[in-house]
Amino acid sequence: MLNRATIDRVVAAALEEDAPWGDLTSEYLIVETAQARADLVARERGVFSGGEVFEAAFRLTDPRIEVQLIVEDGEWFEPGAVLAVVTGPARGVLTAERVGLNFTQRMSGIATLTGRYVAEVAHTRASIADTRKTTPGLRAFERKAVRDGGGRNHRYSLSDAVMAKDNHLALLTRGAVDGGWEAALTRALRAAKERLPHTAHLEVEVDRLEQIEPVLAAGVGTIMLDNFSLDDLRVGVAQVAGRATVEASGGVSLDTVRAIAETGVDVISVGALTHSARALDLGLDVRIDAP
Amino acid sequence: MLNRATIDRVVAAALEEDAPWGDLTSEYLIVETAQARADLVARERGVFSGGEVFEAAFRLTDPRIEVQLIVEDGEWFEPGAVLAVVTGPARGVLTAERVGLNFTQRMSGIATLTGRYVAEVAHTRASIADTRKTTPGLRAFERKAVRDGGGRNHRYSLSDAVMAKDNHLALLTRGAVDGGWEAALTRALRAAKERLPHTAHLEVEVDRLEQIEPVLAAGVGTIMLDNFSLDDLRVGVAQVAGRATVEASGGVSLDTVRAIAETGVDVISVGALTHSARALDLGLDVRIDAP
Amino acid sequence: MLNRATIDRVVAAALEEDAPWGDLTSEYLIVETAQARADLVARERGVFSGGEVFEAAFRLTDPRIEVQLIVEDGEWFEPGAVLAVVTGPARGVLTAERVGLNFTQRMSGIATLTGRYVAEVAHTRASIADTRKTTPGLRAFERKAVRDGGGRNHRYSLSDAVMAKDNHLALLTRGAVDGGWEAALTRALRAAKERLPHTAHLEVEVDRLEQIEPVLAAGVGTIMLDNFSLDDLRVGVAQVAGRATVEASGGVSLDTVRAIAETGVDVISVGALTHSARALDLGLDVRIDAP
Amino acid sequence: MLNRATIDRVVAAALEEDAPWGDLTSEYLIVETAQARADLVARERGVFSGGEVFEAAFRLTDPRIEVQLIVEDGEWFEPGAVLAVVTGPARGVLTAERVGLNFTQRMSGIATLTGRYVAEVAHTRASIADTRKTTPGLRAFERKAVRDGGGRNHRYSLSDAVMAKDNHLALLTRGAVDGGWEAALTRALRAAKERLPHTAHLEVEVDRLEQIEPVLAAGVGTIMLDNFSLDDLRVGVAQVAGRATVEASGGVSLDTVRAIAETGVDVISVGALTHSARALDLGLDVRIDAP
Amino acid sequence: MLNRATIDRVVAAALEEDAPWGDLTSEYLIVETAQARADLVARERGVFSGGEVFEAAFRLTDPRIEVQLIVEDGEWFEPGAVLAVVTGPARGVLTAERVGLNFTQRMSGIATLTGRYVAEVAHTRASIADTRKTTPGLRAFERKAVRDGGGRNHRYSLSDAVMAKDNHLALLTRGAVDGGWEAALTRALRAAKERLPHTAHLEVEVDRLEQIEPVLAAGVGTIMLDNFSLDDLRVGVAQVAGRATVEASGGVSLDTVRAIAETGVDVISVGALTHSARALDLGLDVRIDAP
Amino acid sequence: MLNRATIDRVVAAALEEDAPWGDLTSEYLIVETAQARADLVARERGVFSGGEVFEAAFRLTDPRIEVQLIVEDGEWFEPGAVLAVVTGPARGVLTAERVGLNFTQRMSGIATLTGRYVAEVAHTRASIADTRKTTPGLRAFERKAVRDGGGRNHRYSLSDAVMAKDNHLALLTRGAVDGGWEAALTRALRAAKERLPHTAHLEVEVDRLEQIEPVLAAGVGTIMLDNFSLDDLRVGVAQVAGRATVEASGGVSLDTVRAIAETGVDVISVGALTHSARALDLGLDVRIDAP
Repeated sequence: MLNRATIDRVVAAALEEDAPWGDLTSEYLIVETAQARADLVARERGVFSGGEVFEAAFRLTDPRIEVQLIVEDGEWFEPGAVLAVVTGPARGVLTAERVGLNFTQRMSGIATLTGRYVAEVAHTRASIADTRKTTPGLRAFERKAVRDGGGRNHRYSLSDAVMAKDNHLALLTRGAVDGGWEAALTRALRAAKERLPHTAHLEVEVDRLEQIEPVLAAGVGTIMLDNFSLDDLRVGVAQVAGRATVEASGGVSLDTVRAIAETGVDVISVGALTHSARALDLGLDVRIDAP
Repeated sequence: MLNRATIDRVVAAALEEDAPWGDLTSEYLIVETAQARADLVARERGVFSGGEVFEAAFRLTDPRIEVQLIVEDGEWFEPGAVLAVVTGPARGVLTAERVGLNFTQRMSGIATLTGRYVAEVAHTRASIADTRKTTPGLRAFERKAVRDGGGRNHRYSLSDAVMAKDNHLALLTRGAVDGGWEAALTRALRAAKERLPHTAHLEVEVDRLEQIEPVLAAGVGTIMLDNFSLDDLRVGVAQVAGRATVEASGGVSLDTVRAIAETGVDVISVGALTHSARALDLGLDVRIDAP
Repeated sequence: MLNRATIDRVVAAALEEDAPWGDLTSEYLIVETAQARADLVARERGVFSGGEVFEAAFRLTDPRIEVQLIVEDGEWFEPGAVLAVVTGPARGVLTAERVGLNFTQRMSGIATLTGRYVAEVAHTRASIADTRKTTPGLRAFERKAVRDGGGRNHRYSLSDAVMAKDNHLALLTRGAVDGGWEAALTRALRAAKERLPHTAHLEVEVDRLEQIEPVLAAGVGTIMLDNFSLDDLRVGVAQVAGRATVEASGGVSLDTVRAIAETGVDVISVGALTHSARALDLGLDVRIDAP
Repeated sequence: MLNRATIDRVVAAALEEDAPWGDLTSEYLIVETAQARADLVARERGVFSGGEVFEAAFRLTDPRIEVQLIVEDGEWFEPGAVLAVVTGPARGVLTAERVGLNFTQRMSGIATLTGRYVAEVAHTRASIADTRKTTPGLRAFERKAVRDGGGRNHRYSLSDAVMAKDNHLALLTRGAVDGGWEAALTRALRAAKERLPHTAHLEVEVDRLEQIEPVLAAGVGTIMLDNFSLDDLRVGVAQVAGRATVEASGGVSLDTVRAIAETGVDVISVGALTHSARALDLGLDVRIDAP
Repeated sequence: MLNRATIDRVVAAALEEDAPWGDLTSEYLIVETAQARADLVARERGVFSGGEVFEAAFRLTDPRIEVQLIVEDGEWFEPGAVLAVVTGPARGVLTAERVGLNFTQRMSGIATLTGRYVAEVAHTRASIADTRKTTPGLRAFERKAVRDGGGRNHRYSLSDAVMAKDNHLALLTRGAVDGGWEAALTRALRAAKERLPHTAHLEVEVDRLEQIEPVLAAGVGTIMLDNFSLDDLRVGVAQVAGRATVEASGGVSLDTVRAIAETGVDVISVGALTHSARALDLGLDVRIDAP
Repeated sequence: MLNRATIDRVVAAALEEDAPWGDLTSEYLIVETAQARADLVARERGVFSGGEVFEAAFRLTDPRIEVQLIVEDGEWFEPGAVLAVVTGPARGVLTAERVGLNFTQRMSGIATLTGRYVAEVAHTRASIADTRKTTPGLRAFERKAVRDGGGRNHRYSLSDAVMAKDNHLALLTRGAVDGGWEAALTRALRAAKERLPHTAHLEVEVDRLEQIEPVLAAGVGTIMLDNFSLDDLRVGVAQVAGRATVEASGGVSLDTVRAIAETGVDVISVGALTHSARALDLGLDVRIDAP
């Protein structure tokens, strides 16, 4: 459930962006009394996402417009399906059309791509998770779309979980002599854990197998195996043995995701869900009636 | 040139979105005095876009961070190229990294996709144009990216040009008897033109050849041939004969764009440039130095 | 039609500006249960503008207040006419009064001044157009008022049309030898046109007759004859001969506009419409009823 | 002194309003390296106002632009005077020009009109004061302009002083029998005073002489004589005899203000200062230099 | 009465702050169809404040939620009292709970503390006033709470009254020789008064008795006796003798306020009302019903 | 480290709140050329917090003002200590004074109260944690203050951790027969965990000992023992035996916190840290120098 205040703030800004001085075409070519009925129609198969946002685009343009959502967020639909019906003054319906579509096409595109990844790994224990590679300003919407597609959200921001990467590990073990880096790493992570919010998840990204033990020794929540080969993933999963959540990352595509999931990892994070999903092909079929 | 006030407003909001309560990882794992040097590196070939925006992400996080742009917006680069160098306090560099990348990867992705379309039609008179199918809140940025890729901007919003489509034409010719629709259409468009801002471009979308003459008779600026076959495009171009700009739209992809351009149209509009470009693969190679 | 989201954003800000800590007078002198009925009355003749905005001032202060608009935007009214009726809780009615009036008096003032210019040129082909000399933050409202007065909007912003002035022409022809400036100018304008959005109107301001031909040769949309004498305007119109829209600018007042229009120009732009219109004299006649 | 945060917020919004997608003319007709020097020149006599705001328009567009203010806010200048000099990248100078002018022309217009009123009453004890009839969103700026013109600010908003008008008086004395309304009025105003912030000024508007005594008996700060004849103003001033500030309002123009002031009133409030001042004629003389 | 636009702006921001990506607990643990009824219950005795704000938290989260206010702002209640009843979809009720409570607990805390101060001085002529020591961003709300507690608002901001303190007095009398400082001070304050808005209250803070006469001689509205002993307060009150409002400040607590009030001062300002009130203990008793 | 964009946004809004039309006192009583030096001085012992925010108040008022921070956030200081030194134009220094103090007094008040709680439990394993009972709009600042006082942040918002309370548990176990509620609870929590972001912490609040086992069986991160007696806390800690973080909540005060900590719990959350801390007594000692 998206916060209505958030939806309205973001959609209102999008409407102003798309019509800073009004909609010339509606105003000069359509009589004020004309009424419209518009069907939101699927041009391809997909998962619906963004119904509330679509509705807001019309409501915020003209409160007399009504939007009836026929398909719920998270539902799969076939080409030709009518997803929603919009009725009301024709000028407003046409003014809001593009903004409404821009949101729901993008969100449904993300939901659908997520749904395809999820289907690939359905027979495994792995979840498909998103990343922080989202569109600036739209993260709440894109994360909703991932959930609608059956995916699982990763940390939302820099503020709700720690993700220690190679740079951090190097820094934390600086100056450790010989094989002393393992102990140094464990110690440093433990020290951080004690000061962090107790609700903050601690995730550590490793890029080779020998880092796993010292990281686990610190009691982390998730260990991310970054760019591991399938074999190494399997070894890693065995080594972790349930002591932490195992996340795989890097080199994930629709072609590779199934094999990765079959190594036994718990979570596979996929930047492409949000940074490279294409908009789903949805259209608005409008009929206008004028007295 | 993007307005600095706009850049700063949008980037500041993105930074707050990504770290509403600060960056836990930086704060708990990196000493305050650590310094970083980070190279923005291309992992694939592309066109750079968003340099100023990338710079703003770091500057607005910590004014002590300096960003040196090495490649200019609009330049092609090869994999491995260093596009920019960031130096300053390590905490801030890492805090801003993802937001900086999210903007520039998206913009460079759009610029690069545009560049590929432009290359396809380079030997013709056709320009590649974008559409209003942009990300809500980021239109100014995405349009800049299209220009950086060598594309040409279409109307920016509902307020700066009229685009009459099938619905409008149907409405304008309602009640016309027999073949009278042609005269009715010409008359209606002319009437609108006289009331519109004289600087507002009038574009009319037609879906069959016989609509061309009555539309041209009204003195429109652009006639859009929507979903025409290649043959019909050629006939249409000949029929217009320079009396208006000819825009082709619908069914445009990297596979089809060359043939469409070769029909002689002036402009080809491509929604995919902004609604379905994938993020370009750029990364930040960070080295941290702590006393 | 103004976007409701825009109206509400601007009016809410105005209400907060006028009562950052509430309305002391209403709160300390009027009982909470008092009801008011207020007539918006014309104290002078004019054109109404800003009905929706007037309504928003009351609705956003207290949703229980109802505003019935009696005169529509764009209608002329006589002194004494009741333009709207406001009913609801007295405190809110009085709190919103000044903000509601500030908007509608300003907008009706602009509409009325525009109406007077339009009346002067009614027998000619000329339209009266506004300029970018609007009040910061209120351009969408003031442009609406110009339309309500029968005027025609000019470009809305720096982003929707090009206006090349003396400085630009000097720059574009720099270095041209002898009479070569004409060719240089034509060439430069043509080059710009090819890169500009095809929907962007190209207008060029000239200040002497010999600039007309090289500008027209580039295929511009509008040629602005700046500060031309009436004789030169007539010559200019003849010379352009329908190849572009002819706009006259400079030295336009209610005394001079008729003669300028009679030279045959298409558009006369008048900065005074928005930068120097005085507020129309409208008042709110309030009756309060308390139990 | 205007708060810099306020200036920057308002000016940045104005810049975005005037160039939501950038300045096409600058971007397509001026090379990036061109430099400009621009003089802000007076085309008529007036009082300068808005120097800081003018400066902000350029600084917020491009921080490399420098603005040197030559005339200070509040100074009179003659036609032809150079008020400020702007130097920096030509694109930004031209982009910010109109917004900078829109602010300073409006503010200087208000300051100049105020200055003319002030000059009319210079030989009397009367101050010229503004009203709440300001432009929505720009009150802080317009009030500054009034001060620059030598005027005196009235209450800034509904929150900083009480102004009881005819409606309020009628309500406060409702139900009082016979001549009892005087006592009822005094009592009601005193009661309000005791609850109001002790720093809140209490001003009461009266429209006939017999209201003066009961109002004064309550110990008000200001008594406003609304639409009084000159004779009645003189009687009123004598009657008040220094027990409260006397404000005259209604029917004030440059023709009548001197006579009103000579009746001995302390303050004359003039709505026209802000709601009907015309913009002062200032222009930017730009010279562009390109390598 | 708080402006609804202000309430909604501030509450919407608080809701976004508390759930930037939605409410995980509601979304993952409560079925969408569950309904809730929640009583706002007092856990301790106090004065209610913030009813409208409490209502807005739920309405802005989900417009289907209804809030019935049972106790009015400004009413005292006993422990166990039900102050309001909330009914509607359970997810939204729980999402908005904390934000609604945060506002009303803080406001009721301030109102209650104010009420205790007011009770202490009830037998005297003194009012209890607040200060500018409020929470950034919430001043309008906290000032409302003080009124609800029976207190009196002081100046709202730096813009609605002048408060001259020791620094200012030192500056104004700089360079005065011998005993000349008294005359210099009177002169300087008078000069300021003549230029200030006539509605701006002039308050001067003095820290010793001999400053009183020269300040009064300038005709100030309020004289603040800062950190005076009880004896000096009594002397000061006698000396002022009704020629100005007398405000006492400094060293005020629930233990000392009665004695201070009994010295005869008019106003006692108490920073602690807003900067150190603790939140009142209110709770939401929620019952959830799911089909 | 607070994000600079956030600091500036919040502080600029506070400055506008406190001086919507400028600072009358500075403008009318202080010459523009006056310079000030101001020491931020501690009037009581405490922990400093809010240095960056204090600095921003002055910088955003007038960029010429310099603030030198002498004490760092998180440091204890004694009464009389100089915490920071402000130098620059006197008008701006006095205008920003109250806003700067309001932030830093509040933050230092929270830090100091936190510090006192932390000192009480220093000999135990318990951390002191804050809650979501923060001031609307200031959570990021108040959480920083808690950290500066040596406290540990709890979840920041509804979006970064799940907190299941009595209502949720009742709902999750509805319809379970006999003793079946334990299994039902475990099952329901496990099911939620699988869909939640893997980085989302799952915390469950219990109010009696027999709930502990079924909750732990689901593998939660934290179990909160709400309003347990000291004896029950000890039993609970033993029962959990390190399988989850143990948080104590309810009835926590400076008098009780030590005994609670000694029961062996890991975290003690204290709403009072933010909802009932009083402002610390800090003052600005200003010296003004005028030419």
